[in-house]
Amino acid sequence: MNLVLLAQPPESDVWAIREPRQLQHLQQHLDLKVGDQLKVGIREGKRYLTEVLAVSAEQVLVKPVQELAIPEKLPVTLIVALPRPKVLRRLVMDSVTLGVEKLVLIHSYRVDKSYWQTPFLQQLDDYVTLGLEQAGDTIVPKIELYRRFKPFVEDVLSEWTTAECPSFVAHPYVEQGISGLQATHCQLLIGPEGGFIPYEIDLLEKNGCQSFSLGNRILRTETAVSYILGRLTA
Amino acid sequence: MNLVLLAQPPESDVWAIREPRQLQHLQQHLDLKVGDQLKVGIREGKRYLTEVLAVSAEQVLVKPVQELAIPEKLPVTLIVALPRPKVLRRLVMDSVTLGVEKLVLIHSYRVDKSYWQTPFLQQLDDYVTLGLEQAGDTIVPKIELYRRFKPFVEDVLSEWTTAECPSFVAHPYVEQGISGLQATHCQLLIGPEGGFIPYEIDLLEKNGCQSFSLGNRILRTETAVSYILGRLTA
Repeated sequence: MNLVLLAQPPESDVWAIREPRQLQHLQQHLDLKVGDQLKVGIREGKRYLTEVLAVSAEQVLVKPVQELAIPEKLPVTLIVALPRPKVLRRLVMDSVTLGVEKLVLIHSYRVDKSYWQTPFLQQLDDYVTLGLEQAGDTIVPKIELYRRFKPFVEDVLSEWTTAECPSFVAHPYVEQGISGLQATHCQLLIGPEGGFIPYEIDLLEKNGCQSFSLGNRILRTETAVSYILGRLTA
Repeated sequence: MNLVLLAQPPESDVWAIREPRQLQHLQQHLDLKVGDQLKVGIREGKRYLTEVLAVSAEQVLVKPVQELAIPEKLPVTLIVALPRPKVLRRLVMDSVTLGVEKLVLIHSYRVDKSYWQTPFLQQLDDYVTLGLEQAGDTIVPKIELYRRFKPFVEDVLSEWTTAECPSFVAHPYVEQGISGLQATHCQLLIGPEGGFIPYEIDLLEKNGCQSFSLGNRILRTETAVSYILGRLTA
């Protein structure tokens, strides 16, 4: 946690941190004392350097001292085939930490249908908070879910795809690398474990998506996310 | 698992896969039948497309049909402050999957000394195997551990650092980005949670290490590894 994110804008000049998870982290890792400085952000608002006024088991009181710039987002819509539940948390958290503007989870042939039933999907907002607190960010990215692949590609992705905002799909069996994507607005698709099937790649390409290769190493989904975003922003 | 890695070179033309972990994976995920194709590699040797000859609960028999090229390594020595035990497995696995030539785990002020006692450090070779099987690679990267920061930097890293093979350390408080590192031989240092302390950054810089910034988002160690390697190879 590199920022304490307040869910609601505070109503006075003295702010109270009362969420048990945040208090526990501060107690375990920071050993806060009165007079210490702490970064605190307001969800969907600004972030500040604050000064600690009081520390107890029930709350930490701070007052804002200086406004801090919010980290810029990457102008990327990351579209990922819904991963296994245990991977979902890290994937959402990492995508948010890395600063994608929008995260889209889609179905695909190799996504087990049971993944859509996981209770973890009800906790996406918690994962977003963790990602924001890791990055020191306050702005919640858009998250969208599409449970049908074909309508998503034909009706949604095809609308998003333009010359100014192209779509790219990571695919192991093409020659084209990903250079030349630097700092552009784009949609970036990452398949499930085992990859998109040929029918899906065909449909994506027919709807304006360009395939690119990540080289001949096969990465786990979550590794691929940060690796590709790293390449993109070099 | 995108490759079954055999620990020993087989002694006949028919190869037996008998390791319980590998058999279980093949049974759960692949539903192998006689005549199917399977990628099999020999640790520190070649890799092949093989044909399945027999499947039973105790073993899978295959014969090699075609030699496959081994993925190239990244010409990078990745030097990471020893992470928390639960992160270690993923970090080693991902580094190997991404293809670093050498992985070095070092001590640093913000590394809890207890981390060096974790039994996970006895299992590094298992994590390497998982990383190789994920990537489809057969060549084991070198792994080295240094439990003292200063002697490592002054006596080891300073020797590794040359004009042809520079050293770079990720540090949040410098302006310099990481562009211009494309496809060069280098050492790349990533600090612990909370970062290297100023004394450590000073010592690194005095010994020829260049600081670079990852931008103003703070990444988890494991996310930083794949993100930086992505930037490096763009």
